[in-house]
Amino acid sequence: MYGAGNVRVENVPDPKIQQPTDAVVRVLRACVCGSDLWPYGSMPATEHGVRMGHEFLGVVEDTGADVPGLHRGDLVVAPFVWSDNTCDFCAEGLHTSCRHGGLWARDGIDGGQGEAVRVPQAQGTLVKLPVAEDSALLPSLLTLSDVLCTGHHCAVTAGVNPRTTVTVIGDGAVGLSAVISAKRLGAERIILMGRHKDRTDLGLDFGATDIVSERGEEGIERVRELTGGDGTHTVLECVGTLPALQTSLGVVRAGGTVSRVGAPQYGEVPLGFPEFMNNITLTGGVAPARAYIEELLPDILEGRIQPGRVFDRTVGLGDTSEGYRAMAAREALKVLVTPDPLTL
Amino acid sequence: MYGAGNVRVENVPDPKIQQPTDAVVRVLRACVCGSDLWPYGSMPATEHGVRMGHEFLGVVEDTGADVPGLHRGDLVVAPFVWSDNTCDFCAEGLHTSCRHGGLWARDGIDGGQGEAVRVPQAQGTLVKLPVAEDSALLPSLLTLSDVLCTGHHCAVTAGVNPRTTVTVIGDGAVGLSAVISAKRLGAERIILMGRHKDRTDLGLDFGATDIVSERGEEGIERVRELTGGDGTHTVLECVGTLPALQTSLGVVRAGGTVSRVGAPQYGEVPLGFPEFMNNITLTGGVAPARAYIEELLPDILEGRIQPGRVFDRTVGLGDTSEGYRAMAAREALKVLVTPDPLTL
Repeated sequence: MYGAGNVRVENVPDPKIQQPTDAVVRVLRACVCGSDLWPYGSMPATEHGVRMGHEFLGVVEDTGADVPGLHRGDLVVAPFVWSDNTCDFCAEGLHTSCRHGGLWARDGIDGGQGEAVRVPQAQGTLVKLPVAEDSALLPSLLTLSDVLCTGHHCAVTAGVNPRTTVTVIGDGAVGLSAVISAKRLGAERIILMGRHKDRTDLGLDFGATDIVSERGEEGIERVRELTGGDGTHTVLECVGTLPALQTSLGVVRAGGTVSRVGAPQYGEVPLGFPEFMNNITLTGGVAPARAYIEELLPDILEGRIQPGRVFDRTVGLGDTSEGYRAMAAREALKVLVTPDPLTL
Repeated sequence: MYGAGNVRVENVPDPKIQQPTDAVVRVLRACVCGSDLWPYGSMPATEHGVRMGHEFLGVVEDTGADVPGLHRGDLVVAPFVWSDNTCDFCAEGLHTSCRHGGLWARDGIDGGQGEAVRVPQAQGTLVKLPVAEDSALLPSLLTLSDVLCTGHHCAVTAGVNPRTTVTVIGDGAVGLSAVISAKRLGAERIILMGRHKDRTDLGLDFGATDIVSERGEEGIERVRELTGGDGTHTVLECVGTLPALQTSLGVVRAGGTVSRVGAPQYGEVPLGFPEFMNNITLTGGVAPARAYIEELLPDILEGRIQPGRVFDRTVGLGDTSEGYRAMAAREALKVLVTPDPLTL
């Protein structure tokens, strides 16, 4: 990405093992994230550009000496933060704060939107997938790298359980994944706030019980009406904007929890005296996807959840720029990126 | 209170049963709250004044027809919010959001800083205390009406347990109660931030393991040094000012929780991208003291905790104004108010 609206596919040096803890993975499936759209909308122009992509699954091509659990040919998924999976933070399930981890597409690390990636801390980062390269489950398995785990993190940190009512803010891929996750954790009432009918229809398929298409004060009123005036115990904020957060605080029940997983496009949160008197909790944050993959994987393999349905468009790697455009224009919900025929 | 710095003791009509759910309680012990100091510092002058006081224990003098569990002569403590103890919020332990509850000293309800109080929803609100009127435990039992339960709420909502490190911000009566509560919940490392040596000394008696007297960035650095650079898993914010909250966010460990129980003197909280990336939770709020009294009472009766030690000055009811002055001037930590000799 060279700046707002400017994504180019270019040749870069092939990744090679640099550290004994590295692996090289040939990318089978990647995708464009809602969070990629923030720089796509506003990044200042740069001369050299930056790598992009933090969601991918693929095939191990090479491993360093200190990656005992992985071998050439293994099919693996990478969470959107790499980590050693052994430090105290990882042991607590907070792999996003790993003492030896980091982000893709930064500081000399490859991005996932490419042909291959050098994976640091490969033993800790990558999770093997027991499927073949042509599995129809690849799109759903790819969501383990970010959106499904992010929706799950949102629901878990909010404390969703069979006794909690839920509002999900946002009908993007993360919001829809939050619906799957809330349903999976037993929630019986899931109100989805979104205004794209094709997306909210998918939300209903995933387990939403009510759709609220109104926004702002009108949307808050509608959720209040649906809940006897009280709001819901938990609110899953899957957008990241201040208006979405304000809506969250407007629909949360006294004693309830707002969990946010959309990268916040604000610096200050309106949590003053009224929220204090109502004992409102704000939680969530960047999802430690690695912590959740083993738990969620069987539900995908056994067909109980189908998060891959969030992908409604596929582009070849060479057309990644078109994928960004389609997502930014809201023509596509989430764009899957496959290797180009030439690469195959 | 007629305005900032203007507290007067005046004759008002004797409280009488108005509703079948009322009781009248003769006040044995009341006190001045840190939160009373906010209006004492800034309340605009008024012609008629407002009642004050929301912490008291006393003796039941009369009961309405619908207060089956209480009788004349019962010694009782009142939590700082009255509630029916039967609605859905109360059942969840959130008595501060009771559907039929309210605050003392508002809307025609008496304040606790007086000779007697009409108690609405008396059956749900009042808790019997198995002691005599001359018990030496009265000061500690009085803390059940607010500060001990508030400190406990702070520690509970923060998730304090034997595996969490704790920072307590503020060496007032609530902060010291939070130290008692964190210790009681098993915390082994409790860092108390405060700069009044007599108070932090009491904090050490209550279970604090480290005292940090520096404030602001310097205080944050000091707590970071004490915790290997990481900060503590939980932060108990017992002040209510923006700087105290900023300090809390500066000393909380990634993945950690800040709980606030001081009435917030701010409207916006700096919880932007850095706090998101660190998965910081903000929780707490006004404490549902009623929910905690039965749990904490045995520890006081059996001498395991002595929260009454936060009272370091006693005034007669007629000298309540002097109590405010001494607390506002930081000459007294917390002021106990007893009936005047004339009343006795």
